[in-house]
Amino acid sequence: MSQTSKTNVDQAKLMEKIVSLAKRRGYVFQSSEIYGGLNGCWDYGPLGVEMLNNLKQQWWKHMTYRENVEGIDASILMHPRVWEASGHVENFTDPMVDCKQCKARYQLDVLFDDLSLKRKKEALRELHPGKFDGQLKDEVVTEEFSKLIATDASSAEVTKALSCPSCGNKGTFTEARKFNLMFKTFVGPVEDSSSVVFLRPETAQGIFVNFLNVQSASRQKLPFGIAQIGPAFRNELNTRNFLFRTREFEQMEMQFFVKPGTDDQWFEYWRSERLQWFHDLGMTKEKLQWHQHPPDKLAHYAKDAYDIEYQFPFGWGEIEGIHNRTDYDLSRHEEFSGKGMKYFDEQSKERFTPFVIETSVGASRSFMAFLVDAYAEEDAPTAEGGVETRVVLRLHPKLAPTKVAIFPLVNRDGMPEIAHKLEADLRGSFRVFYDDSGAVGRRYRRQDETGTPYCVTVDSQTLQDQTVTMRDRDSMQQVRIPLDKVRTYVLERLM
Amino acid sequence: MSQTSKTNVDQAKLMEKIVSLAKRRGYVFQSSEIYGGLNGCWDYGPLGVEMLNNLKQQWWKHMTYRENVEGIDASILMHPRVWEASGHVENFTDPMVDCKQCKARYQLDVLFDDLSLKRKKEALRELHPGKFDGQLKDEVVTEEFSKLIATDASSAEVTKALSCPSCGNKGTFTEARKFNLMFKTFVGPVEDSSSVVFLRPETAQGIFVNFLNVQSASRQKLPFGIAQIGPAFRNELNTRNFLFRTREFEQMEMQFFVKPGTDDQWFEYWRSERLQWFHDLGMTKEKLQWHQHPPDKLAHYAKDAYDIEYQFPFGWGEIEGIHNRTDYDLSRHEEFSGKGMKYFDEQSKERFTPFVIETSVGASRSFMAFLVDAYAEEDAPTAEGGVETRVVLRLHPKLAPTKVAIFPLVNRDGMPEIAHKLEADLRGSFRVFYDDSGAVGRRYRRQDETGTPYCVTVDSQTLQDQTVTMRDRDSMQQVRIPLDKVRTYVLERLM
Repeated sequence: MSQTSKTNVDQAKLMEKIVSLAKRRGYVFQSSEIYGGLNGCWDYGPLGVEMLNNLKQQWWKHMTYRENVEGIDASILMHPRVWEASGHVENFTDPMVDCKQCKARYQLDVLFDDLSLKRKKEALRELHPGKFDGQLKDEVVTEEFSKLIATDASSAEVTKALSCPSCGNKGTFTEARKFNLMFKTFVGPVEDSSSVVFLRPETAQGIFVNFLNVQSASRQKLPFGIAQIGPAFRNELNTRNFLFRTREFEQMEMQFFVKPGTDDQWFEYWRSERLQWFHDLGMTKEKLQWHQHPPDKLAHYAKDAYDIEYQFPFGWGEIEGIHNRTDYDLSRHEEFSGKGMKYFDEQSKERFTPFVIETSVGASRSFMAFLVDAYAEEDAPTAEGGVETRVVLRLHPKLAPTKVAIFPLVNRDGMPEIAHKLEADLRGSFRVFYDDSGAVGRRYRRQDETGTPYCVTVDSQTLQDQTVTMRDRDSMQQVRIPLDKVRTYVLERLM
Repeated sequence: MSQTSKTNVDQAKLMEKIVSLAKRRGYVFQSSEIYGGLNGCWDYGPLGVEMLNNLKQQWWKHMTYRENVEGIDASILMHPRVWEASGHVENFTDPMVDCKQCKARYQLDVLFDDLSLKRKKEALRELHPGKFDGQLKDEVVTEEFSKLIATDASSAEVTKALSCPSCGNKGTFTEARKFNLMFKTFVGPVEDSSSVVFLRPETAQGIFVNFLNVQSASRQKLPFGIAQIGPAFRNELNTRNFLFRTREFEQMEMQFFVKPGTDDQWFEYWRSERLQWFHDLGMTKEKLQWHQHPPDKLAHYAKDAYDIEYQFPFGWGEIEGIHNRTDYDLSRHEEFSGKGMKYFDEQSKERFTPFVIETSVGASRSFMAFLVDAYAEEDAPTAEGGVETRVVLRLHPKLAPTKVAIFPLVNRDGMPEIAHKLEADLRGSFRVFYDDSGAVGRRYRRQDETGTPYCVTVDSQTLQDQTVTMRDRDSMQQVRIPLDKVRTYVLERLM
């Protein structure tokens, strides 16, 4: 999964609001905050972990509860030869430059992404004197600049034409050099090259090295897939955009093994399945787009590659990649391990190396996309007949951390007893929040902001006829339903 | 969670059988197996990951779906000061010795654990000449030896009295020196002491540093707990016993914050809750025991500590620790971060540092304990009237990876269609296995060995009256139930 953002729409305030809500309501905290934080690492709070678990569970059910996909959970530390075979030791590098003036250090692609139109224009004019005189329109700058860096990103001329974002000086960058993004550590007591292992930069390789073990244990025949959810690590120099570019993140990957020649049709199948998954969980269709990797930018192992991009406040950013990885990975592991990685087809009696269609979602990134997509501010009537701004997280009920909030209207007449009994009944099935303090309007607003889809009010009528009001977060409509139907009412909407 | 085993009952064959079944059926594979494996790391296969997920989900529901426990998911990489405050930089060490003859390197406690009675006797006699002459009975050797190493484990006399398990030579060990068990890595492009961070050796600290963030976001009042599931890493020199002592493992930890003075009562509450959890998931009661840490062996932060131990084939081993950690961790983080970590009690208007009761389960270890506990071999009748040995995994239905297997009795007369329709109906709810090959007796055996609790057979009677046979794994009893009641039948047994 590569990390790109296409535009720089200034919606910084919206991101600020979401980051602030995320902290205040317990979705996401800065890691090790009391020590000033650890750059590029985040902690999921009480609501965040529930939503993340819901998201992972939705993916897991959708991807593995079918007859031709198996799950695994491979270890984070793997044999170092895995990363030689995969090409990560050699190729998983980013060009990096230093500012000789202020010592700031940048990944070159981050530097390019962050350049203003003005600076891009300056660089183009300087690098191609005469070519862009006069007629360099705003609309073509980004495109021209992309062409430039596609061919010549780390040349000394390009880096010298840039200004340092830290100190503002121009021409102070060193030439670019390669920096490997894998974190390394040492197993055993001796710290030398023979004991180096890496924190996995992707979960995919854990799947490839287990291909034949899984196939034999599960007795699967081609085509079939192997799916995995788990943490991965990249030593990014310039982390940014909240959960978008981080050092520690979680991936949800599935590798689908097919007979060569059938790969194009499966590629289309999985593209369609994966986009539909985001639609089914309520993501705004207009904020999703396909980005096909141009032929000259394809990864060394890929035959074709599409990203699903979401329109974040800071621009379009990849949240999932669907790649045709060909037979590259299995062939390389066969070469590097000396172990046969071919599949024997019993019907045709052929032995061959399968092609692989990969679907790779960032769990952390799609978590953020769902959070951003759910955030809304709207006018809502107050109890006094006025209008106030309502902040609401329109999360799909399947993703919402808390499914039901229970409000006894007043703390007397047996209402708390009924409300507490309902709470206890529901807790076995899903996460519930009990709130008996303050005006009911304020309690609703609090749940709107945390994304709770259903609020149940126990009132004086409940005492007479055993019904409660069930209020819907999005429409704010209330209906009266029997107390003993609350559980079923909610469960039906989570199916 | 400390790592100890008490006895060395020779049940090596049983462990071998379980490890072999685990691989053959897709529970657990060696990590990076095609490259010869990575010592101390394991991968969960298709059945293993389902069972592990079921186990984690059972724990999560039991521990956090209550009004006074919140969940979090903190990052694996944390600010390095966290581990100074926690004491890990200074104290998370094991004494280690080298054999000067063959260069083998050992953790001293592993070396002690693995000593035979004979060698323990020799060492005792050598270190206490005269004291043990003649009357050193087998029953007291282990106890006497434990006393010895409790006081004097890493002294030069003790290490010299030992023989090297690798080369057999005696007196060839170096003096013991401290070895820190934390894996370290470097963030950013420069590898020096200022960029060192550690892979967390426990999940607990991610909870402590987030104490006030969680409390404020969730509006919890004391007493309340924070729970977390996640990977942790220890650079063990001598890994062993399958999933028992590994370098990478998963923990399920809950830290319960209470007012000082109420800690003893909450300690008892959680001891009882946690033991009950293992009973409820069907673990053999007689194979569980409490081990209280003796006062002179308590960790530096602990007031009292009990382990839940399981009787593995290789001896008693800790699977969970319940510890009274006092106010040690919060006080230390207050001291090291300069941020107040105290709780303000609105009722009594007091400000104080809470005490903490910790419950810490190894997910990987308890996974192994449930697997071992479920394994059985028994006589079973064959179709021909003979007797054969049946291998059966008696996993609790909630933990079993596959809930239902579906067998069409023959591949004609519309049976496959009915069976496939049932398969599709059930897949939305849980993991299903479809098997239409071979004699039905063999299909049953295969499911017994993988732990599937229910097998449904579609036969000729199904065509007439829309009923199927439902066969129970443990009793092998079969009942006929309507086809459209299969889903409910199974779901009721998973509640």
